[in-house]
Amino acid sequence: MNCIEVENISKRFGPVNALTNINLKFEPNKIYGLLGRNGAGKSTLLNIITNRLFADSGQVLIDGIKAAENDEVIGKVYMMSEKCLYPEGMKIAKVLKWSNEFYPGFDLDYARRLADEFGLELNKKVKSLSTGYGSIMKLVVALAVNTPYLLLDEPVLGLDANHREMFYRILVQHFAQRPSTIVLSTHLIEEVATVIEEVVIIKDGKILKNESCASLTAKGYTVSGSAAAVDSFVADKQVIGSDSLGGLKSVHILGIPNKKNLPQGLEISRLDLQKLFIKLTSA
Amino acid sequence: MNCIEVENISKRFGPVNALTNINLKFEPNKIYGLLGRNGAGKSTLLNIITNRLFADSGQVLIDGIKAAENDEVIGKVYMMSEKCLYPEGMKIAKVLKWSNEFYPGFDLDYARRLADEFGLELNKKVKSLSTGYGSIMKLVVALAVNTPYLLLDEPVLGLDANHREMFYRILVQHFAQRPSTIVLSTHLIEEVATVIEEVVIIKDGKILKNESCASLTAKGYTVSGSAAAVDSFVADKQVIGSDSLGGLKSVHILGIPNKKNLPQGLEISRLDLQKLFIKLTSA
Repeated sequence: MNCIEVENISKRFGPVNALTNINLKFEPNKIYGLLGRNGAGKSTLLNIITNRLFADSGQVLIDGIKAAENDEVIGKVYMMSEKCLYPEGMKIAKVLKWSNEFYPGFDLDYARRLADEFGLELNKKVKSLSTGYGSIMKLVVALAVNTPYLLLDEPVLGLDANHREMFYRILVQHFAQRPSTIVLSTHLIEEVATVIEEVVIIKDGKILKNESCASLTAKGYTVSGSAAAVDSFVADKQVIGSDSLGGLKSVHILGIPNKKNLPQGLEISRLDLQKLFIKLTSA
Repeated sequence: MNCIEVENISKRFGPVNALTNINLKFEPNKIYGLLGRNGAGKSTLLNIITNRLFADSGQVLIDGIKAAENDEVIGKVYMMSEKCLYPEGMKIAKVLKWSNEFYPGFDLDYARRLADEFGLELNKKVKSLSTGYGSIMKLVVALAVNTPYLLLDEPVLGLDANHREMFYRILVQHFAQRPSTIVLSTHLIEEVATVIEEVVIIKDGKILKNESCASLTAKGYTVSGSAAAVDSFVADKQVIGSDSLGGLKSVHILGIPNKKNLPQGLEISRLDLQKLFIKLTSA
C-alpha cells in the first residue's frame, strides 16, 4: 500500500498522444531511473503524479488514496522540476527559509550544510544563478524536504562533472540514512547506472521497459581489444554500438557472453546502460 | 599565422579575477576541449575572443590581426553560446533564413537536412522549444555557418543521449569534410574524450593544463576486478577515484601501469578523462 500506483493513465495534447495507458508502481525505498528521449512523456507523467496536470483517463494512487482528490496525500510527494518556480528577485537564504515554513519535514540545517558543500552562496538572488547553480539550488531544497516520495526531473542540468559526482554521492548517502522512494529522470544515463536500482523506459508515451537495472544490463555485454580482433569476434553477433580510440575498439553486443570461447587479447565488460538505451529508443 | 592567439588576457569582475594572464593558441584544423568547472572563466574567455566582452589587459589575434579593432576578422569566428539570442516569436525556418542572409558561408540546404535529422520542426517558434531542442536549433546554425573558427559553449545542454551521440558523429563528419578549428566547452567530459584532440583546462581563471588528450589520459590508468583484489593491488598507488558495482570495482590511478606484475583476474584500461578532470580541479 505504501507506493505510488499509476493506473491506466492517458493524456493527449491536441493531436498528440503524450501518454497512452501507463501502468506503473513506484515501490517503497527504491531509487528508480525514469528514462526516455526528449519529448517521450517523462515530464508529463511526473506532472500528472503531482497534480500539476490532469490525465484524460486513469488515476494515480498515493499510499492507496486517489491523488487528484486529496491534498494531504499530495504533500507526501515532492517534485523538483526543470522550471524554476521561485521569484527571480528572491535571495537563496529566503528560498530555504520559505521552504522550511512550507514543508513540515524540511531540515533547514541540512539544507544550509548542502548549500555550503556545493558552494551555493546564500546571499545571491535566484536570477543571478547560472544554469548549473540554478539546478543546485533546486537540488538542495529537494534533498532537505524529506517527503516519502521524491521526484527529480533533470536534476543535474548544467552541473559540472565535480558537482554531478557530489550529487550522486549525497543522494546515495541521503537514501541510506532516510530511505524513501526516489524517481530520477535524466538524460545522463550512464552516470546514474550505479545509482538506480530499477529502470522505467518510456518511448512515445508508452512503457517500453520496467525492470531492474541489473537484469536490463545483463541482456548484453561489451567486448574490447584491438580493432581487427574485435571486428572478427563480433562478425556473427548482434552489435548495438561501438567506440574506437586509436587502434582499440569496444563493441556493445546483445546476448550472453561465452567467456570460454573468448579469443586471447579480448576483454569482456558490463554493458553500458546508455548505449542500450540509445539502441532501444532509436526510431 | 592561421590561428587564434590569446595573449596575456586578464579580466576582473569587481573583486573577482575572472581570468589572469591567459596565454593560448588555437591552431588550425584541430578540435579542442575547453574544460573547467562552473564559474572557472570558460565563457568569459570565449566572450572576449568574440569581442562580446573586453579584456582589462592583453589581446586576441585572429590570423595575426587584433580582433578588438577589426570587424572583418571577427567574422571568421562563430560562437554558439548558452544564451538564446533569437527573438522568442521567430519561427525556426526564419532563424535559418536569417542566418543564411547574415553569414556569407552559411549552407542553408545542410542546415535544413540537419534539422530534419534531429527532428527539429521548422514551423515551431523559438519560445516553444524545450531546453534540448533549443540547443539543437543553435547547433544546426553553428554547424552550417562554415566559419574557419567555431566556438561551442555547452552545445549539448538538455540533449537526450541519442541526440548527443548524433551530434558527436555529425561534428566529426563535418570536421572531416570541411576542416576548421573547433573549440568545444562542455561539462560532459567523458563523452567528448574520443572527439577532442587537444585539452585546455581552466581553473580559477588560470590555465591548468594545455596538452593533447592522449598525453593527458596517459598520466594514469584504471584497474578493474573483484573488490578485494583491486583494493589489495592499489594499496601503495595514487588513487584518484573509484566506482563499484556489485562485487566488482574499478579504481582510477595516477602513474604508469606495470602490466607484468598485474595479479590474475585484474584488468587495466584507459583512464577516464572526466575522473582525471575531477581530481585535477577539485579544491
